[in-house]
Amino acid sequence: MPDTSFAEQGRSSAAQHRLARLRADMTLAATQVDEVLGQILPLPQGLHRRVVEAMRYAIFAGGKRLRPFLVLNCARLFDVDRVRAARVAAAIEAVHTYSLVHDDLPCMDNDALRRGRPTTHVAFDEATAVLTGDGLQTLAFAILSSPETHPSPEVRCELIARLATAAGHDGMVGGQMIDMEAGQRHLDFSQIVTLQRMKTGALFEFCCESGAILGGAGSGDFERLRSYARDIGLLFQITDDLLDTVGSTEAAGKKTGKDAEQGKATLVAALGIEGARNHARKLAESAAAALENYGDNASSLRQLAQYLLQRDS
Amino acid sequence: MPDTSFAEQGRSSAAQHRLARLRADMTLAATQVDEVLGQILPLPQGLHRRVVEAMRYAIFAGGKRLRPFLVLNCARLFDVDRVRAARVAAAIEAVHTYSLVHDDLPCMDNDALRRGRPTTHVAFDEATAVLTGDGLQTLAFAILSSPETHPSPEVRCELIARLATAAGHDGMVGGQMIDMEAGQRHLDFSQIVTLQRMKTGALFEFCCESGAILGGAGSGDFERLRSYARDIGLLFQITDDLLDTVGSTEAAGKKTGKDAEQGKATLVAALGIEGARNHARKLAESAAAALENYGDNASSLRQLAQYLLQRDS
Repeated sequence: MPDTSFAEQGRSSAAQHRLARLRADMTLAATQVDEVLGQILPLPQGLHRRVVEAMRYAIFAGGKRLRPFLVLNCARLFDVDRVRAARVAAAIEAVHTYSLVHDDLPCMDNDALRRGRPTTHVAFDEATAVLTGDGLQTLAFAILSSPETHPSPEVRCELIARLATAAGHDGMVGGQMIDMEAGQRHLDFSQIVTLQRMKTGALFEFCCESGAILGGAGSGDFERLRSYARDIGLLFQITDDLLDTVGSTEAAGKKTGKDAEQGKATLVAALGIEGARNHARKLAESAAAALENYGDNASSLRQLAQYLLQRDS
Repeated sequence: MPDTSFAEQGRSSAAQHRLARLRADMTLAATQVDEVLGQILPLPQGLHRRVVEAMRYAIFAGGKRLRPFLVLNCARLFDVDRVRAARVAAAIEAVHTYSLVHDDLPCMDNDALRRGRPTTHVAFDEATAVLTGDGLQTLAFAILSSPETHPSPEVRCELIARLATAAGHDGMVGGQMIDMEAGQRHLDFSQIVTLQRMKTGALFEFCCESGAILGGAGSGDFERLRSYARDIGLLFQITDDLLDTVGSTEAAGKKTGKDAEQGKATLVAALGIEGARNHARKLAESAAAALENYGDNASSLRQLAQYLLQRDS
């Protein structure tokens, strides 16, 4: 690029460096969480091995491990032991995967493809998929209740209580309920934001909070991380909706165009494609601003916002 | 009864007294657990109210509340505060109800009737039923993690860890997986016992253990209560199978004759009706024997074994 100024070359090189560091941190998070999950879910044995096999199929599906990345990188801000953080990340990934397995069921979103592979009820059967989701949810609480996650039972109970709130009927499950009914009633912009904050945002918030819980952080830290998590959660959802609207099935690794087909209330439908892109940019700026206090330790978390803005899968 | 001896009259009157006391204790357990659940699951509000409504529908269905009875009466052996025990009972009932809601789904046992009413997926729809079960499971862990259940976070973590083991892939969920496959492969007697110990026995064991955990009991107590729970769990399952084989739909409050129809492996199929009745009597005796140490405090628990032997619903 002969006509690029030195300043632009510098910016571009710094940006490339930050992106490379983000990718390395994401790969590291994925590796560490998979190691924990591999230890906790050993190769299937016994009469009931089919459900363990299906749990492993669902959870070792090559996902982005975005939530583990958030846990590990927020925990890093407070010098938390990485093995402990990886166990919390594994618990959250178990909850996230259970929700995907159930959401994909024929009676829910009826998706046959997920992360480029047949969904669990297609690869196994519906009954096994229901049990797989159930078992993965239980597993999350088993992980958090173990002293290996944190020596203090008080910290473990705090993690469990917050995960239960984030995942339960006033959080993720309630959000999915609103989503299931969204085809039958008109939701305005603020109602769609409520839906997304419950469906995906609550678990994102817990990812970031859990680092602060593990690290015994102060209330200011909690507020900043919650703010970051809310922005990132909504940003993730908007870019997910944009991918569904304008992306290809091949790049996304799942069927696209389904939201419009099902008449689903999305932020893109409420704001329009350009409006959604603008809102996503504002959320990315706001997410980065929430982390100003944390210096270089938070650079991957800041970079994530840019990455989500530009993602194509 | 003019030709009944005084001794027989005395026995009969003592038996009637014990049965009346059992019934009073069962009613008390049901009232107390329903009170806790009513506080925890308030009347539905907000965009996601449908799932809360369905959770209430599923859990306030007039069940026998056998598990809460076990929790409260085992806790009584160690002078545990009744409000704390009722909260643990509520958590277990939430897990039990979630398993019923999911087991009734068309892709599982496909039952339209439960406790004499339409099952949750019939009264609402399949997607709502999946979410209802999911939300009820989460609720159980939310209840146990709260300081209202026990002031010691160590005790709360112990309860959560044991519930997760009992309900997860090596317990209840694994048992249901074996049950779903039982139509396609021959299970021998010991394999059916394994199935039942996982599917229903593990949660029964936790019911009884939880009283000992709440009361800080010794290891001998745990062993005795586990032994009682194993006997009662299998006794419950055998009498359930007998009701399915020889009972009427009207009395059972659910469709009967389904096990044979679906070629399911049951203990009655393995032992024959008379063999199953004999085995049930032995289990009832063994259950009562495990409680010898606990004197009059355990009379309702002992009486339960007799009640299960004679139940018609």
